[in-house]
Amino acid sequence: MLERFLGPRRVRQIHRAARNGTVTFLCLFLTVVVLRGTIGAGKFGTPEQDFNELRDHLYSRGRRVEPHRVLEEAQPETESDNQSNNYATFDITKILRDDEPEEKPDPSKPYSLGPKISDWDEQRSEWLKNNPQFPNFIGPNKPRVLLVTGSSPKPCENPVGDHYLLKAIKNKIDYCRLHGIEVFYNMALLDAEMAGFWAKLPLIRKLLLSHPEIEFLWWMDSDAMFTDMAFEVPWERYKDHNFVLHGWNEMVYDQKNWIGLNTGSFLLRNSQWALDILDAWAPMGPKGKVRDEAGKILTRELKDRPVFEADDQSAMVYLLAKEREKWGSKVYLESAYYLHGYWGILVDRYEEMMENYHPGLGDHRWPLVTHFVGCKPCGKFGDYPVERCLRQMDRAYNFGDNQILQMYGFEHKNLGSRRVKRVRNETSNPLEVKDELGLLHPAFKAVKVSTSS
Amino acid sequence: MLERFLGPRRVRQIHRAARNGTVTFLCLFLTVVVLRGTIGAGKFGTPEQDFNELRDHLYSRGRRVEPHRVLEEAQPETESDNQSNNYATFDITKILRDDEPEEKPDPSKPYSLGPKISDWDEQRSEWLKNNPQFPNFIGPNKPRVLLVTGSSPKPCENPVGDHYLLKAIKNKIDYCRLHGIEVFYNMALLDAEMAGFWAKLPLIRKLLLSHPEIEFLWWMDSDAMFTDMAFEVPWERYKDHNFVLHGWNEMVYDQKNWIGLNTGSFLLRNSQWALDILDAWAPMGPKGKVRDEAGKILTRELKDRPVFEADDQSAMVYLLAKEREKWGSKVYLESAYYLHGYWGILVDRYEEMMENYHPGLGDHRWPLVTHFVGCKPCGKFGDYPVERCLRQMDRAYNFGDNQILQMYGFEHKNLGSRRVKRVRNETSNPLEVKDELGLLHPAFKAVKVSTSS
Repeated sequence: MLERFLGPRRVRQIHRAARNGTVTFLCLFLTVVVLRGTIGAGKFGTPEQDFNELRDHLYSRGRRVEPHRVLEEAQPETESDNQSNNYATFDITKILRDDEPEEKPDPSKPYSLGPKISDWDEQRSEWLKNNPQFPNFIGPNKPRVLLVTGSSPKPCENPVGDHYLLKAIKNKIDYCRLHGIEVFYNMALLDAEMAGFWAKLPLIRKLLLSHPEIEFLWWMDSDAMFTDMAFEVPWERYKDHNFVLHGWNEMVYDQKNWIGLNTGSFLLRNSQWALDILDAWAPMGPKGKVRDEAGKILTRELKDRPVFEADDQSAMVYLLAKEREKWGSKVYLESAYYLHGYWGILVDRYEEMMENYHPGLGDHRWPLVTHFVGCKPCGKFGDYPVERCLRQMDRAYNFGDNQILQMYGFEHKNLGSRRVKRVRNETSNPLEVKDELGLLHPAFKAVKVSTSS
Repeated sequence: MLERFLGPRRVRQIHRAARNGTVTFLCLFLTVVVLRGTIGAGKFGTPEQDFNELRDHLYSRGRRVEPHRVLEEAQPETESDNQSNNYATFDITKILRDDEPEEKPDPSKPYSLGPKISDWDEQRSEWLKNNPQFPNFIGPNKPRVLLVTGSSPKPCENPVGDHYLLKAIKNKIDYCRLHGIEVFYNMALLDAEMAGFWAKLPLIRKLLLSHPEIEFLWWMDSDAMFTDMAFEVPWERYKDHNFVLHGWNEMVYDQKNWIGLNTGSFLLRNSQWALDILDAWAPMGPKGKVRDEAGKILTRELKDRPVFEADDQSAMVYLLAKEREKWGSKVYLESAYYLHGYWGILVDRYEEMMENYHPGLGDHRWPLVTHFVGCKPCGKFGDYPVERCLRQMDRAYNFGDNQILQMYGFEHKNLGSRRVKRVRNETSNPLEVKDELGLLHPAFKAVKVSTSS
């Protein structure tokens, strides 16, 4: 998420106070939950609702705040030697400072993502008809998908942050290459009013309208990684839906829980409906007074939401809960697999997964996506201990990377190691080798073969 | 380049000594060259040979050395608070240290990239026949291409290095998305003996053999960026060739100049011939005595080569010059456009290019690739002043990025700025808008449309 554009955090005190009082409660609750979990194992999918509720309870204690300053405000370092070849003493702020002031938006005009369009479905289908060389379906049951992600154009405040952004994009490139999905990595702030997590809205609208050939746009946060390289999204399941997010109906519509769904990884169908929901979503986003005031409304209206400015996720929970009849039938809250998987309940189980399961399941047995919410490796301060976050991000990366490496006969020495070892010898008949997961030439990547010449 | 795996540098003294004595010589030479350049402007293409020779002369003064230590050898920092959420005080070396010693190769066995294969063309064409859903041509005159690049799995020694790797991969993702090319980002060292620039050889061989559907593999260094988003490689030109590199016949075959060609960006056709040349190329690579001794041979045999261990580029010049009759007919040394463009002679002219030319030319007027040889932003020490390198890398990135942004109605405020400004208003009829460069739906990305239903 582009949290680095946001203002100061507000909930650290709440966080600490709540943590103490929570411990006792947690022990009791955990006992009950484990008993229930053992007795009623339930079907495969994402874990039972109450177990998640426990995690969510922990998670909700101020875990989504963005406290850090942007780079321009950092104290400039001492003057370095302009002729120096030495990067270690080089003051990067000297090059990167952008001194022009931003233009101020007109406060009297309500925010708009762009001119209202009411006939996008018609415009789009006309275009598709006239441009058969850019089809919106690239295979049987295979829509053209664009995966969109991004990060700030500035170097991370934290020196290793960019390294983790690099690994995360390599991870996404790998998954997308296997699955015939294109990638768009954004590093431009298109609308200064919609900075931070809200920056995805103008970007998404722009891409949908520029690329009518895209059937689904898949937004994915920079702190989310693919951990199941073999799992193909069940596109057919969503043929009557336009918006797919990980979440639970009860937690959104009944509880209005601010983490009843997650906007860190979602699918949006290129459609009039998408333009409409983007327009309905955007009003809480403009930074400053609008976003601050909207934040207060969201904290008041949603369950467990801490105090901070409006974020896109809370705003979507609020929108769906308030206008269910308008949007609900086209929104699929998916919990059968981890379109978004909260890292806290996954990362310690990777070895157990490798022992008992296999890629292709996408769910709690082998999560499609592990999402490092709250870690914020790019910023100066995360919501979790740094060592825990980085170590687990390395493990998640290696867990996913192993599935790529095994195609080529290698794997990481262990989940904590950068180094790889050979697990399959070279051969003079490489085409007789089948990689275990069948990822070298997977069905979901095959092109349509015309049956007539 | 994966220079970070290499040993200590050797030529800094040569560099400084030579620099002094060179100045006078340069002034005289420059006068002569400018006169010749003005009188004989020549055809469009990459600049005249002698002008390049001057640049090369400068370039060759020890500009390809890798002096820095790897991360494990860094002094460990003081013990940081394990519970700290503060990235600034966190000691990354504690997580990333990989303490297992590498296995030592058997010194009595000559190095081999893998078991000899002699019938790859037959194996491959059989596979392609049996797998029409994975064709090696994805459009008329459009081979399936895999662009391969990569960097070390370790964080850069220099804090901003990873940020530049991130921008460079975004840049490649953009070009490749427009041109229907897939990307493979490598962060695994497959063979410890072939570390550093040689790491690409085992990787390339592995990818060719695993993916018979790939027609061309395009290797591109991590410090090279696309600066012409509209230029499509003239694939037809190479129908009778298997290896395309930027370079000049005279400088390789006649002069044996170590920079007569560049291995930072090249095309290699998936073929028996490719496996053979990889096998012929590899022997100078194994690190240690072999690579050191080979380096001495290369310095002795090639023109202007400084003293350092064998590098893949020098080795290829040597191989081609020595065995021209064996390989030469299938090698295309391309100088009509910048498949590789040395940054030093390009980056100061971007504004002039924007004033006088347009994307799609690929040559000195609008270079396809700007390659930051010698900058080494990931390491501690480059061959050029740090500020010059980083500032120019930002400009090159923005120059290329503008061509992507213009598709969506934006551009960077100036070549030195991260910030973008709108240059085309939103409209309610987005499909009537044609982006100037025609990159939204370019012909080279269209799929084959079957004429029969």
